[in-house]
Amino acid sequence: MRYKRKKRLSAQEYADGIISGDRIILSRAITIIESKLPADVILAEEILELILPHTGNTLRVGITGVPGVGKSTFIESFGKYITSKEMQLAVLTIDPSSQISGGSILGDKTRMEELSNDPLAYVRPSAAGSALGGVNHKTRETMLLCEAAGFDVILIETVGVGQSETTVKGIVDFFLLLMLAGAGDELQGIKRGIMEMADAIAITKCDGDNVHRGKLARASYQNALHLFPPAESGWAPKVMTCSSVQNEGLDEILENILKFEKDMKEKGFFQSNRQSQNLHWMHETIDNHLKRAFYTNGSVEGNLNHLENQVIQNKLPAIAGARKLLELFNQTRTENDKNMA
Amino acid sequence: MRYKRKKRLSAQEYADGIISGDRIILSRAITIIESKLPADVILAEEILELILPHTGNTLRVGITGVPGVGKSTFIESFGKYITSKEMQLAVLTIDPSSQISGGSILGDKTRMEELSNDPLAYVRPSAAGSALGGVNHKTRETMLLCEAAGFDVILIETVGVGQSETTVKGIVDFFLLLMLAGAGDELQGIKRGIMEMADAIAITKCDGDNVHRGKLARASYQNALHLFPPAESGWAPKVMTCSSVQNEGLDEILENILKFEKDMKEKGFFQSNRQSQNLHWMHETIDNHLKRAFYTNGSVEGNLNHLENQVIQNKLPAIAGARKLLELFNQTRTENDKNMA
Repeated sequence: MRYKRKKRLSAQEYADGIISGDRIILSRAITIIESKLPADVILAEEILELILPHTGNTLRVGITGVPGVGKSTFIESFGKYITSKEMQLAVLTIDPSSQISGGSILGDKTRMEELSNDPLAYVRPSAAGSALGGVNHKTRETMLLCEAAGFDVILIETVGVGQSETTVKGIVDFFLLLMLAGAGDELQGIKRGIMEMADAIAITKCDGDNVHRGKLARASYQNALHLFPPAESGWAPKVMTCSSVQNEGLDEILENILKFEKDMKEKGFFQSNRQSQNLHWMHETIDNHLKRAFYTNGSVEGNLNHLENQVIQNKLPAIAGARKLLELFNQTRTENDKNMA
Repeated sequence: MRYKRKKRLSAQEYADGIISGDRIILSRAITIIESKLPADVILAEEILELILPHTGNTLRVGITGVPGVGKSTFIESFGKYITSKEMQLAVLTIDPSSQISGGSILGDKTRMEELSNDPLAYVRPSAAGSALGGVNHKTRETMLLCEAAGFDVILIETVGVGQSETTVKGIVDFFLLLMLAGAGDELQGIKRGIMEMADAIAITKCDGDNVHRGKLARASYQNALHLFPPAESGWAPKVMTCSSVQNEGLDEILENILKFEKDMKEKGFFQSNRQSQNLHWMHETIDNHLKRAFYTNGSVEGNLNHLENQVIQNKLPAIAGARKLLELFNQTRTENDKNMA
């Protein structure tokens, strides 16, 4: 630990480097954010506190869609369109599959090769993390570092099949759902509730034989969205079509996102949304810590499986199972504290 | 406390009374479930453990919709239709507004007077509880007691504007969303994501001038639902119309719910869904206890407001605010434990 610590700069040096736009310092600071070493956790917070006044000027866009929808290709094309407008772009990816295969992170780098080589773009795949607050936690703080480094737009990519969408929706300003044109098959795998979260839907791969189907899908979804409950902000989500390989429709999508930013800032919703996101994040972080302390407790771990099975088989009421685990937890804690005293 | 304790029966006496269908014992047992006295908490668990083998034969239906959709009138009519089929019915209501006005519980009783006097029906409004796991927690255990008492169907009413829908969705087999026919105004107030949770939508007040509008709305929503991601179970939600005052459409709704039960049991989804709900409930209960212990801690309470404000104003990173509160919490706990040792 002491060896690793030596290689670190001071919080101020990291902050200065990030704010001046030094990408090497930025990358090293992100590594500290992702680190679990106690000293790094403190250092990460110090860096965050220093760069915080320099955050907030970036448009945060979440992009989701099931595997096969062409997310990476879309982000490559859309990203290059964004940088062609002289905007600086950061791309962060959350890929739950990387925890299983271990290969996806390399895959991302390869797939977004052009964008990675673009001087106006910065691509950072998420390292695989723990289920409780791991990946997602770090993504939000990584986003703040990128903001301080002066990026105009941050794209955060997720796979629309799990829990991470709700988390990403909770840290971005705009949530874009990518879909395929088709007869409903394309919906297989998308989690329910995600459509109602979207600030816009883009139908991908609208080229060649698919153009007509894309237009039909666009009309159907636009009709359906009218029947959805309106967003708190009053924003009416739009359905658009695009082709990443032919670079078509990307302009309309960017325009829509920028219009959202303008409208929401005029209404004051943009800032109020970020404030409640900040607050929510603090409570979510607390919640994750409390849960982690509980479920990594030896007594809890040792009895969890057995009690879970009893609850599943309806042999034990859920609240009785909960109470037993809570008692084991509190007992061990008290004993530990006594031993330490 | 000792005085109150004296009035209690033994867990076995409560369980026997409930299982024999004694409604007075049932009501008294529900009061124990709702009680916060430590002795009652243990007694409640003992009762639950005894009645657990007698639960599971009831169809659990959640009903939601915004104020003004006619929920109480619908439940009164639909409930009477259910009992007319010789089915025994329990109705549980969760009304967040009762925490504010204090008057809604009386209101429910008055509004469902006919059903309350029906010998095949049992209406139990929720007592107002604490925000963290209070009302909802008790509703689930109350539901289990009603199941053991032999009710065939349990309707659980919620208001479709808050967090309780997600909780109710997590304890019922079938989730029915009530909506009004109209030009989109009716959606004001419904929380986003709830439509995608629904197993069926019933458009209420389809009588008089409203019949035509109701039919149009039914067709629109049915089209829109086809574009939603399919449920994990493969069930395709149906949109129906009804009139509570004219008792129309209630048969179709009950048929749809019973078809769901039949189909899902054949697929094995019914049981597997309940098993994962049991498990989820145990973890949710643990989570609520951990949060309650945290946020009722004196040091945390004393510093929460100040730190929340700093986080909202972006003066402090959310994770730094979280860490400070967690440190205060752990410090007080350790000191308490030392003092007790």
